[in-house]
Amino acid sequence: MIKIKKAKTIGFCFGVKRAVDMANKALECDQKIYSLGPIIHNPLVVKKLSQKGIRVIYNIDDIKCGKVLIRSHGIKPSIRKKIKNKGLKILDATCPFVERSHRIVNDIKNKGFHIIIAGEKSHPEIVALAEASGNNMDIVINVKEVKKLKIKTKKILLLAQTTLSKGLYRQITQAAIDKNPFEVRIHNTICNDVAKRQDEVTRLSRIVDLILVIGGKNSANTKRLVQLCKTGGVRAFHLEAEKDLKKNWFKNVKSIGIMSGSSTPDWAVDEVISKVKKIKI
Amino acid sequence: MIKIKKAKTIGFCFGVKRAVDMANKALECDQKIYSLGPIIHNPLVVKKLSQKGIRVIYNIDDIKCGKVLIRSHGIKPSIRKKIKNKGLKILDATCPFVERSHRIVNDIKNKGFHIIIAGEKSHPEIVALAEASGNNMDIVINVKEVKKLKIKTKKILLLAQTTLSKGLYRQITQAAIDKNPFEVRIHNTICNDVAKRQDEVTRLSRIVDLILVIGGKNSANTKRLVQLCKTGGVRAFHLEAEKDLKKNWFKNVKSIGIMSGSSTPDWAVDEVISKVKKIKI
Repeated sequence: MIKIKKAKTIGFCFGVKRAVDMANKALECDQKIYSLGPIIHNPLVVKKLSQKGIRVIYNIDDIKCGKVLIRSHGIKPSIRKKIKNKGLKILDATCPFVERSHRIVNDIKNKGFHIIIAGEKSHPEIVALAEASGNNMDIVINVKEVKKLKIKTKKILLLAQTTLSKGLYRQITQAAIDKNPFEVRIHNTICNDVAKRQDEVTRLSRIVDLILVIGGKNSANTKRLVQLCKTGGVRAFHLEAEKDLKKNWFKNVKSIGIMSGSSTPDWAVDEVISKVKKIKI
Repeated sequence: MIKIKKAKTIGFCFGVKRAVDMANKALECDQKIYSLGPIIHNPLVVKKLSQKGIRVIYNIDDIKCGKVLIRSHGIKPSIRKKIKNKGLKILDATCPFVERSHRIVNDIKNKGFHIIIAGEKSHPEIVALAEASGNNMDIVINVKEVKKLKIKTKKILLLAQTTLSKGLYRQITQAAIDKNPFEVRIHNTICNDVAKRQDEVTRLSRIVDLILVIGGKNSANTKRLVQLCKTGGVRAFHLEAEKDLKKNWFKNVKSIGIMSGSSTPDWAVDEVISKVKKIKI
């Protein structure tokens, strides 16, 4: 039988659990709840909540009344204002780690810092933060992009997408320091939980033959975990649910590691494990 | 004849020139000037100034009247206060780069930061700064010492002795970032001039057979330049003046580089070059 090593930090992270709990609790008393974009980057969970009554919308102009659930990735200040101006109620499920980044940006803007965020330009967390900075921040995803930046001031402030890999942020901060400004402020805004999972897959990649990383195909942190496995030199597959498992992955495999992204529910993890246990090699 | 490559950045740095000029100007009108410790770390210059009337003292209690010259490395706040309380006049030759470090420390103390300075515990610049912080900073000189530190708060502030090597500060800042606090503020307090000399010896060490680094034996920045040559894989000698030159250094040497510490006067450099030109190999 295949030996299974399940990561200790697995299933929903604190911020996602909080967001999903808020959605479920709101559904107990109210049936008109809108989520601006999918509440988390996990299609299974989004589908379940949608069946219970959370409607996903992409434009606030599409609704006239009801409660608006702000998803864990946060929201642009201009849209928050628009929701308030329309008299709609806000159910704020912004992850507290993301809120911390907004506080940092709000405190520092207009103080002569060149703000740099390490993250993905199109990720909702970054899109919202960029606007919070007055669209006055550079978004970089690798060292090359940092090297190309023209630093306009003598002071740099750095922060990271909460789900970035620690190793990449380390390289990016070093590249920013190497630009030799008078001052560099580095905020460690990578979520603790994400950092723990990264450490765990790195550890697992040394002791198993294959790692299964369970999570939404649109989940940035899940994709990064898969990438880390590969960097660690181990085969790894990204799957959303047990139905994605393929028998031929397990040829000559004696031990596997199980990890999940931050927005993967425990039951999706358990279903994968049950099915793997039944595989005969 | 030996080919001589003289560094572009050589002789007194801005801060040392300013201090020596202040001392000379003061001597034009006043003959009772005391320097608390040698004004700069160059025995040749200190001797010349002493012949003109600058008396070096080590304890402020030793004098009752006169002007006190504060040397380029700065002074402990408690001693500055003592000088003022005694009614003595101050001639402040503290290097503006050192003053900047004092401003940083004064602005940040009591704000919950764990202050770390990269430098030598016994160097007068560091001794003075440590007191300015309320003796509430850790002084480290290598990565090992950073790793041993117990960080008491979630925020770290880093600064460096103005004459530290850039490469070492880079390693130390990285080790501090790796301690994973919420925030790291890195001040680049290494003097521009020092950084330029470091880049130049590194460049020279690739193209000459031998480097002569001229400077006081008690000069930290000169010692570091010699170290950098050796790290760069080239033979190097630390000498204070032309009298220290040894003929046997030049066996099989076709090209030499000439560099000096920040407190070495131009004439000392010129004397060395003249003598080298006369050496027949």
